[in-house]
Amino acid sequence: MIYLDYSATTKVAKEVLDTYTEVANRFFANPNSLHKLGLNSKKIIDASTKQIANILGVNENEIIYTSGATESNNMAIYGVINKYKNRNKHIITTMLEHSSVSETLSYLESVGYKISYVKLDKYGRVDLDDLNTLLKTDPVLVTISSVNSETGVKQDLDKIREVINNYPKVIFHSDVTQSIGKEKIDLKSVDLASFSAQKFYGLKGVGCLIKKEKLDIIPLIKGGKSTTIYRSGTPSPELIASMAKALRLVYESFDNKYEKVNDLNNYLIEKLKDIEEVHINSNEYCIPHIVNISIEIIKPETMLHALEQHDIYISTKTACSSDKDYSKAVYAITNNMDYAKHSLRISLSYLTTKEELDIFVDKLKDEICKLKVLN
Amino acid sequence: MIYLDYSATTKVAKEVLDTYTEVANRFFANPNSLHKLGLNSKKIIDASTKQIANILGVNENEIIYTSGATESNNMAIYGVINKYKNRNKHIITTMLEHSSVSETLSYLESVGYKISYVKLDKYGRVDLDDLNTLLKTDPVLVTISSVNSETGVKQDLDKIREVINNYPKVIFHSDVTQSIGKEKIDLKSVDLASFSAQKFYGLKGVGCLIKKEKLDIIPLIKGGKSTTIYRSGTPSPELIASMAKALRLVYESFDNKYEKVNDLNNYLIEKLKDIEEVHINSNEYCIPHIVNISIEIIKPETMLHALEQHDIYISTKTACSSDKDYSKAVYAITNNMDYAKHSLRISLSYLTTKEELDIFVDKLKDEICKLKVLN
Repeated sequence: MIYLDYSATTKVAKEVLDTYTEVANRFFANPNSLHKLGLNSKKIIDASTKQIANILGVNENEIIYTSGATESNNMAIYGVINKYKNRNKHIITTMLEHSSVSETLSYLESVGYKISYVKLDKYGRVDLDDLNTLLKTDPVLVTISSVNSETGVKQDLDKIREVINNYPKVIFHSDVTQSIGKEKIDLKSVDLASFSAQKFYGLKGVGCLIKKEKLDIIPLIKGGKSTTIYRSGTPSPELIASMAKALRLVYESFDNKYEKVNDLNNYLIEKLKDIEEVHINSNEYCIPHIVNISIEIIKPETMLHALEQHDIYISTKTACSSDKDYSKAVYAITNNMDYAKHSLRISLSYLTTKEELDIFVDKLKDEICKLKVLN
Repeated sequence: MIYLDYSATTKVAKEVLDTYTEVANRFFANPNSLHKLGLNSKKIIDASTKQIANILGVNENEIIYTSGATESNNMAIYGVINKYKNRNKHIITTMLEHSSVSETLSYLESVGYKISYVKLDKYGRVDLDDLNTLLKTDPVLVTISSVNSETGVKQDLDKIREVINNYPKVIFHSDVTQSIGKEKIDLKSVDLASFSAQKFYGLKGVGCLIKKEKLDIIPLIKGGKSTTIYRSGTPSPELIASMAKALRLVYESFDNKYEKVNDLNNYLIEKLKDIEEVHINSNEYCIPHIVNISIEIIKPETMLHALEQHDIYISTKTACSSDKDYSKAVYAITNNMDYAKHSLRISLSYLTTKEELDIFVDKLKDEICKLKVLN
């Protein structure tokens, strides 16, 4: 199997699953229970929280455990608007957000919120002047993801923060799901940050909302204190410990991993450049883990299924928005609807090998040839 | 170890954890992905959904996966009130709900909702006449749990439904967390039902909201279709398959399991009746899995910690409301504040043995004796 869909999800690392099963067996008691067994479960969570806080450079009390980035994104947006109801019913975002942000905002628009979409430059990055203009109306929230999941375009959160800093009441949230584990990320520039463990060789069903200590929000899921007052429900020591393990592992020898992916990216792009029918959409602002291409003459679904016959797995757009008919993210950086309707995402990992990329490119060429004849 | 805190949480069954690890390893792809690997993950979920639907006697499209009962309870309440905003801002409940219901309702009260608490009879069961009177104001929602987690008092959902049927627009939700796996439950009488896998030897971090097909609600966690349109986010094939496995296992030879717990309950109660200092709070309407007692002369925390020295684990009240200073549930059935301030919960499983209960009662007697001297 040649898996080149790491940005959709990753296979759990063996050590992470081992941690999960060990904790599930040994620390099964309810962490909210008063007895020693409950306390032992709580200690596992506290130790995990300490590790996660150290790696991310945040305080332990800034970590809120959730079921994943989708819940975290919903919690951030609702948490802010429900807390700051007296502020302007206005939210700034981009056209490139994950559906858990964009559909939440669409719903809010239907109940009276104004949603503004900040302009993007030709590379798909936020136009800071336009952001500054939009901020003059004092919105309650700005929500902009750190890295686009389809194209890999990376936003400069520090520069966005600098502009927002002129409007001290405005709260800044970022979905950093495609950053954690893929780049060194500094969460100091945001008030709220969402991510999921399943994108960095952790398990599905667990994630975080990082919330700056000074910021108060209304919980989305209420019911009394759990690991924090912001998210109720019996916490899972096994899911939380496994996420801490996954985070530790992915940031071990991180520079080597990053360099390897960077090399793989260069290697792949050079090979793809040789194929006449392939247009490379990714640009110099993209993280090396994502290579977005378009093949105008072939439907992306057709290519995806052709490649899966060779046990090669890539993606058309993101896994989560498979029902839309063109890629807004690709359109934003190409201004070309043909490219936007024919995009494919190849996503790389430090586990990927050049041999895998060789086979992928070979089969891609074969299939282009075959499908051209059939077209 | 003698674990008598099964109503707080259960240790995952070996077969359930095996299912989890196998699915996590073999079906790691994102179920929302279009390729074969994604489809295989989706098939695991669909097969699990079919099994769960069969066991619970509901339609497959009535199952919404959540992170647990706390999320399900929040989703049910918010889902209904956000959908039916034009109906009366009035909700009927009891004083005995889990904090994920009661604290959500308290928050809603603070933003303008009227919350009515239906009277209970001396056994802690809903007073149907009072319910009928309250219903005359046409509330948007009635939310009443099937079994109280502290005392084990069971409500007659069918009779409650009969009363509600006179008011066809009123929606009926029940937190059935303490029923699933403990009794044969008929979900036909409710419009919405919440539960968690961790109470029936499944894993923490997964649960369901059962929602009748004809009822529409607004999702709590938005972001596009996942397994249903009602709850977004990458679903976890491993958590879902493990929940289906846990449900199948717990309902295998169910009558034998129930009879065994019933026997254990009788055995324990007979033994406890012989201890002068022990008052038994549980009554004839309680499920046999929960025995609630009070020892007026000893603080419940003191007894809990004394017993844990003998590797015996019980609970003061529920694990989730450990910060309150008396048990409303015990007060409701005893009308005695001393009992309510000194309650202990012993919760049984079909895995419990009479030998364990013998040791528990022996050590309880010893500790009563010791603590009396020290008092």
